[in-house]
Amino acid sequence: MPSYTAPVKDMQFVLHDLLNVTASDIPGYADLDAAFTAAVLEEAGKLATDVLAPLNPVGDREGCTLENGIVRTPTGFKSAFDRLRDGGWTALDCDPDYGGQGLPYLMGTAVGEILVSANMALNMYQGLTHGAYSAIHAHGTPDQKATFLPRMVSCQWTGTMNLTEPHCGTDLGLMRTKAEPQPDGSYRITGQKIFISAGEHDMAENIIHLVLAKAPGGGEGTKGISLFIVPKFLVNPDGTLGNRNALSVGKIEHKMGIHGNATCVMNYDGATGYLLGELHKGMRAMFTMMNEARIGVGVQGYAVAEAAYQNALAYAKDRLQGRDVTGVKNPDGPADPLIVHPDIRRNLMDQKSFVEGARAFTFWGASLIDRAHRTGDASAEGLISLLTPVIKGFQTDRGFDMAVAAQQVYGGHGYIEEWGMSQFARDARIAMIYEGANGIQALDLVARKLAADGGKHVMAFFDLVKTFLKENEGDERLKAGFLDPLKNASKSLQGAAMYFMQNGMKTPNAALSGSYDFMHLMGHVCLGLMWARMAKAAYAALDAGAPDRDFYESKIATGRYYMARQLPACAMHLARIESGAEPVMALKAEAF
Amino acid sequence: MPSYTAPVKDMQFVLHDLLNVTASDIPGYADLDAAFTAAVLEEAGKLATDVLAPLNPVGDREGCTLENGIVRTPTGFKSAFDRLRDGGWTALDCDPDYGGQGLPYLMGTAVGEILVSANMALNMYQGLTHGAYSAIHAHGTPDQKATFLPRMVSCQWTGTMNLTEPHCGTDLGLMRTKAEPQPDGSYRITGQKIFISAGEHDMAENIIHLVLAKAPGGGEGTKGISLFIVPKFLVNPDGTLGNRNALSVGKIEHKMGIHGNATCVMNYDGATGYLLGELHKGMRAMFTMMNEARIGVGVQGYAVAEAAYQNALAYAKDRLQGRDVTGVKNPDGPADPLIVHPDIRRNLMDQKSFVEGARAFTFWGASLIDRAHRTGDASAEGLISLLTPVIKGFQTDRGFDMAVAAQQVYGGHGYIEEWGMSQFARDARIAMIYEGANGIQALDLVARKLAADGGKHVMAFFDLVKTFLKENEGDERLKAGFLDPLKNASKSLQGAAMYFMQNGMKTPNAALSGSYDFMHLMGHVCLGLMWARMAKAAYAALDAGAPDRDFYESKIATGRYYMARQLPACAMHLARIESGAEPVMALKAEAF
Repeated sequence: MPSYTAPVKDMQFVLHDLLNVTASDIPGYADLDAAFTAAVLEEAGKLATDVLAPLNPVGDREGCTLENGIVRTPTGFKSAFDRLRDGGWTALDCDPDYGGQGLPYLMGTAVGEILVSANMALNMYQGLTHGAYSAIHAHGTPDQKATFLPRMVSCQWTGTMNLTEPHCGTDLGLMRTKAEPQPDGSYRITGQKIFISAGEHDMAENIIHLVLAKAPGGGEGTKGISLFIVPKFLVNPDGTLGNRNALSVGKIEHKMGIHGNATCVMNYDGATGYLLGELHKGMRAMFTMMNEARIGVGVQGYAVAEAAYQNALAYAKDRLQGRDVTGVKNPDGPADPLIVHPDIRRNLMDQKSFVEGARAFTFWGASLIDRAHRTGDASAEGLISLLTPVIKGFQTDRGFDMAVAAQQVYGGHGYIEEWGMSQFARDARIAMIYEGANGIQALDLVARKLAADGGKHVMAFFDLVKTFLKENEGDERLKAGFLDPLKNASKSLQGAAMYFMQNGMKTPNAALSGSYDFMHLMGHVCLGLMWARMAKAAYAALDAGAPDRDFYESKIATGRYYMARQLPACAMHLARIESGAEPVMALKAEAF
Repeated sequence: MPSYTAPVKDMQFVLHDLLNVTASDIPGYADLDAAFTAAVLEEAGKLATDVLAPLNPVGDREGCTLENGIVRTPTGFKSAFDRLRDGGWTALDCDPDYGGQGLPYLMGTAVGEILVSANMALNMYQGLTHGAYSAIHAHGTPDQKATFLPRMVSCQWTGTMNLTEPHCGTDLGLMRTKAEPQPDGSYRITGQKIFISAGEHDMAENIIHLVLAKAPGGGEGTKGISLFIVPKFLVNPDGTLGNRNALSVGKIEHKMGIHGNATCVMNYDGATGYLLGELHKGMRAMFTMMNEARIGVGVQGYAVAEAAYQNALAYAKDRLQGRDVTGVKNPDGPADPLIVHPDIRRNLMDQKSFVEGARAFTFWGASLIDRAHRTGDASAEGLISLLTPVIKGFQTDRGFDMAVAAQQVYGGHGYIEEWGMSQFARDARIAMIYEGANGIQALDLVARKLAADGGKHVMAFFDLVKTFLKENEGDERLKAGFLDPLKNASKSLQGAAMYFMQNGMKTPNAALSGSYDFMHLMGHVCLGLMWARMAKAAYAALDAGAPDRDFYESKIATGRYYMARQLPACAMHLARIESGAEPVMALKAEAF
């Protein structure tokens, strides 16, 4: 059975060596000293190792069951969820006015990584609640906030997002679910929603569904869509639970992975709903949830890969097979451990350098969110808005690839469910699909985010890279291993952006045909920038006489690997992009 | 539920336009006229569409069960297997002396693709039988051949390969299964084997296990290994079945995919076995099976991708979502079909250009096998021996990627088991692992095959590419789209081979660290060569006034896509290879 240990030291490195959080001017960051963050992460790590991770295969094996309208989660999930709730882990970065602990989003993200690595399916119940909490927090009336938020912060009540319908996923303009206004100001919600994660379960008293639906008078397409709060049990004025609302689970989906999370078909049969935010502006309110959810899914991308990597590494050290061609390493054993073999190393280094790079990228992104929310910095808001589809799309694609790579280390055992490596791959697969399939992330990046505010944010990103290169150009230790490859990669990215600018206006398909490659190209540049910064931070620590030299030297070596072995993908993506729309669109649809 | 239609037209194009089989001097090829091959492929296609494909999800859902030592295959498998057997599909390319039809291996491969696309798990029962047939055919005594081959050709008896043990997969030198010689010339086989595909089932009267074991006096490591025929039921001199042999199924593995195939733990408790081939030279005999099995697994790589692609394409044409940015394509519908969107096109073209390229590569490889076997041509033997790890490793990696890509087209529905796309991805995953995990294929390619016979075969391969480029250098239609990219890709491959030659002798890890990239680089060059040849063939057909112009123009467009969008990977692989062993091996094992 796989095991998991929270990578607290690696996280501390990102928080303190790379981001230097206590020196930040973001309100609340001064309190994040190393002792405090270590204590929080270690405590989360204990829960993850002892409680959540052992339940991960149980959830996969048992799945959720639906009987007479009641959904049962796998053995142990309910008590583990109580532990999450009682330990305050669901309230970390929530508003203290509603019972939250008020910690930065960055800390929520770091802890979130740990919980996801240990048990992605279980953590989704609170992840979705957090998304719904954020939407109500941002768009709710004072009454709505008072009623729902305290109980959602504690996960006494959980939340969901209801977007998809059988005939519409990406294209929400096709939505059919209706909302009819009632004399008392509420709405009657009627329609069917599918793929509703955590849609029904036995771990909370109430479930607060946020449902997109069309109210009269809103016009065609997405313009007519509004967002509604639709509780499973109606809530009395005193906060106690009232009648069961007219909604039910149609079925639980039989999925490739995340079996421990109940993915439900939800039927709304004239259910009572309350408008959240402005009428006919539901998409905007939904995006409050969605953007947060996309960062959360980006975390899933590398967090599952981290868990898979830890186990692949342990197996590679333990399994004896073949001999090191450069000389026997385990003369007393019948063979050497797998880790002596260069191709196994390549595989492990791919995983390690991705996961550590993605963690840095994500934590940096989380700090941009904190800056935007806590200081109102519009440029931080613009930058994270640009980076969000990269965090989501690139990290989940690569995270899945790395989970598959980790499985490969096990040879035949990787294919056998009992070993648990298949689950990592199967679970990781969904992250490429939900909260906007990765093709949509690429579209969002290229068609919306690049041009947003006159291209200001992508220019700011290029400036960040340029400034870093300029500031460090005299550093001989960084030059060949980090600065040169980063400069090349960044040039490829600029070349791609230039290609889109020159061709995309005239021929939109020229940009859209290269969007997926652009997302990956930008992901590599972001991780390259992170690794260059981490190398600089590691050298600084070594120069300052840090006691744990091996740790910092490993960071530098891991970064060098990423730069040498992963950044060459950038030129490939540029070449594909520059081949334009013609090869992609040449065939008529009938000719396929 | 997914459906499948045999791509007979595409196969005919490879057989007749590309390989021009009837003009070949390979004995037996003259008979393969277009009418004959179309009849065979269409007949196989009918069986595939009507019988095998509908059982594919059944096999996935039900799996195999073990009760009281008896393994039951999924509902319908037995009667479908009877259909395969009764239709003579298991005997296509077998020796007529033993009841085979004597068709070329090429035809067996083409039909094999169809059967695998329709139902990979079911087809494995006959695929493994064919491997065991080949080993007995090549190494058996006249008596062994007479006893076993006719019944294996018809699949009245099926076969297996028993290599892996719990502690040894790749490193067979660690093997513990023992063979003790008996006074009557037989051996008593004792030990445990794992991951035995088709190890036990209810579809054949007898199962002929080929088992690797150590007989006394063979020395250490793989040198002491011999191969034994160990039937489930002993066979009387008159060919009737005798006593049950002392072997049994320990358990059926619970796997990520290919649930319809019984993957067994096999226990040999002093079972009676008969030496196959020479004592202590079992590895050689096993490799007769293994090389064939590797080509067969390479077929699985693209055959499952073909089935997944067909369904992704149908979904992309059917599912209405969003509008074409260049102008509405389906004004009467609520939205345009997915296929109008450039990123969906990119995805479909990735799949289509891979599958068609891989088919051409594999069929060409099969024709090399026919040339080697039917004419004794040593250079054909050497070339296919070089290409086998590429066919296996590259095609299964990319085939899995493409099955995952096909799943992505379905959005959320791709993750739901009922739609069947998850099964394609899960089934395709095993092909990267078994018959030598792909890291081992890369090792075989770089450490053995490149240098084999003084590098003669890789030089012959480069000559093939060079000759093609030279012969066509005046063809302006091929130049920009095909010849230039092929030349560049081939230069990258030569650069990589040069790097290995210059560095690999001194520093073996410099070659081994780049082996995986080399396998992929070579795979792309092979598919690039195939596409350039196919484009040439398509232009020739167009010039000759072929009636179906759209078909040939599509081939050219699909090929141009592969050249423009996939071959840029070659420079990336070269850059990684040239970064050498240092970044890969920099970390000490303890530092991970």
